Amino acid sequence: MNYDRSYNFSAGPATMPEPVLEEIRDEVMNYRGSGMSVMEMSHRSPVYQQIIDEAEQDLRDLMHIPDNYKVLFIQGGATLQFAMIPMNLMKNGVACYVETGAWSKKAISEAKKYGEVHVAASSKDRNFCYIPDCDDLDIPENADYVYICENETIHGVTWPKLPDTKGRVLVSDQSSMFLSKPCNVSDYGLIYAGVQKNVGPAGMVVVIIREDLIREDLDPRTPVYMSYKTHADNGSMYNTPNCWAIYCCGKVFKYLKSIGGLEEMEKRNIAKAQVMYDFLDSSKMFTGTVDKEFRSLMNIPFVTGDKELDAKVVAATKAAGYDNLKGHKSVGGLRASVYNAMPKEGVEALVEFLKKFEEENG
Amino acid sequence: MNYDRSYNFSAGPATMPEPVLEEIRDEVMNYRGSGMSVMEMSHRSPVYQQIIDEAEQDLRDLMHIPDNYKVLFIQGGATLQFAMIPMNLMKNGVACYVETGAWSKKAISEAKKYGEVHVAASSKDRNFCYIPDCDDLDIPENADYVYICENETIHGVTWPKLPDTKGRVLVSDQSSMFLSKPCNVSDYGLIYAGVQKNVGPAGMVVVIIREDLIREDLDPRTPVYMSYKTHADNGSMYNTPNCWAIYCCGKVFKYLKSIGGLEEMEKRNIAKAQVMYDFLDSSKMFTGTVDKEFRSLMNIPFVTGDKELDAKVVAATKAAGYDNLKGHKSVGGLRASVYNAMPKEGVEALVEFLKKFEEENG
Repeated sequence: MNYDRSYNFSAGPATMPEPVLEEIRDEVMNYRGSGMSVMEMSHRSPVYQQIIDEAEQDLRDLMHIPDNYKVLFIQGGATLQFAMIPMNLMKNGVACYVETGAWSKKAISEAKKYGEVHVAASSKDRNFCYIPDCDDLDIPENADYVYICENETIHGVTWPKLPDTKGRVLVSDQSSMFLSKPCNVSDYGLIYAGVQKNVGPAGMVVVIIREDLIREDLDPRTPVYMSYKTHADNGSMYNTPNCWAIYCCGKVFKYLKSIGGLEEMEKRNIAKAQVMYDFLDSSKMFTGTVDKEFRSLMNIPFVTGDKELDAKVVAATKAAGYDNLKGHKSVGGLRASVYNAMPKEGVEALVEFLKKFEEENG
Repeated sequence: MNYDRSYNFSAGPATMPEPVLEEIRDEVMNYRGSGMSVMEMSHRSPVYQQIIDEAEQDLRDLMHIPDNYKVLFIQGGATLQFAMIPMNLMKNGVACYVETGAWSKKAISEAKKYGEVHVAASSKDRNFCYIPDCDDLDIPENADYVYICENETIHGVTWPKLPDTKGRVLVSDQSSMFLSKPCNVSDYGLIYAGVQKNVGPAGMVVVIIREDLIREDLDPRTPVYMSYKTHADNGSMYNTPNCWAIYCCGKVFKYLKSIGGLEEMEKRNIAKAQVMYDFLDSSKMFTGTVDKEFRSLMNIPFVTGDKELDAKVVAATKAAGYDNLKGHKSVGGLRASVYNAMPKEGVEALVEFLKKFEEENG
């Protein structure tokens, strides 16, 4: 059916699969004969318990999450995780961070409140357009973990391979690439992702944490909500969770399973990003801002080199129904976020439009 | 239209107005020609900014919130507020709490992490079936605030009048009675409410805070998310908020305005609760558990005095399509939560059912 929907290139919240939205719409007034909307359900009811259980199981299936990892649904976004991670994982009070863009910078700044933060590598020298070499990082002996942002939403860089943590726990912010490709969970101690980029509606993070990292001997001033143990011991329902986000994300997990899982998703994402990168590499007007090796499959920043022209392109795309293409101010230019739910046709249409724009304005 | 919806007496998340749900359903695929669902919108887009601005303004209109109060939308539920309040409001490190049931107990327990908590009055002696006399509380000279839970969801007690705080700041948890009747905001320093009881979907609290209580000289270990200043300085969008909850709550605010505001809502709530209390006062099988003067308009716990019979009633109501009537284990029996969106017909139908049950099983 035609709902007259735009191609929405927002960096997040972002586009969702249309079949998922249709299911949600059809269940708003009465969820499967329960007599009520999911928004109205007691989180302690059997009907809601089934929704959260299935969401967790479908995510476990998709990512092949080992049994010794807990899956938690927590409110407060990545911003709360920036504090929760050091509060829970710093036993020695020391951690290693790799600085690769705006989001790892924010994580670093927050972690400094809770202990010694060792920035082991940075790509600040070239405005975060690459990932630094992390094969032989200088990691303090007593570092509790090594932290990375696996895809920098604003700067559009991603890690082609994980850093050598020299045996330390790896913590990864996967917000803007969560479920975009297969992931070997055992490589990590903790993975988290704000779901509003690649999964569902805003207001929740998924945390996947190895059980042995869940401690109870935290600083006594730690808010009860900010202890992973609180959420792990109570199946993410110590208090009322973001029930709606869990429900919607659960539908996206099922949808991803139905199309062939993360292997298939990765194939589609590669093909999709390729359309955009091929264009940028052949264009005389537009240039991608990231070194080729580190280009994100999800967030594609590009510039004309002329601020006025950038603004003109953004306005033209918006008028033509391609939404949210303005780049973040720290990079400038434009940014196309092409998450899982962006169809290849959307990218093809955008590229056609940009080609025409280039012809007419070149 | 008949959607075959149940009468849902859940204590939260809870029933929402049907016209609001219909509007939400109709906008899922494409919000008013924006080309996308509200779940897919950048929170930095003009179309979303209008949604959050209107939600705030409609709430201000409904409650007549003075200009020197900020309205904040924050994730993490009341549980996060239990810590945020002392973290932000304890300047002298001392606060006064009144213990009136399960939720004020939880608030007290969390506040103790951050300073000296003086429990000025309690109704624990009779399992929280009344509100203690608070006309002459023993409040320490240097207490930063006096905290109350204005309606105890589990125990079903409410405050017929506010405590005399002797000039100290009053902080109130209004979660389960928010917007159920007019409120003189100037009587309070801070009001907060988890929206999943009387407004919309779970995953958000509304905080209404007097501007002079917003500080920046907090303990340096305070997470950035847990400073009220973070949210106040950024229009509740320092990070991505629970956009969906703001959208849905905004619709409920508009709906309440359309039916005549909080004065009209209070009238309806009194009439509705009266149906239930009149029945309880005339029944030989069922008894309300709360002293009359302190009975909540929203949560009505009642018992038969016989646990097996209680369980039988719960099962019978459920089978008849009256949902979520089981009482909380700390009170037992049954509890009918009759929030704003519960129609009077729902309460009348339940009472008819209970009368019939009493006749047949008395």
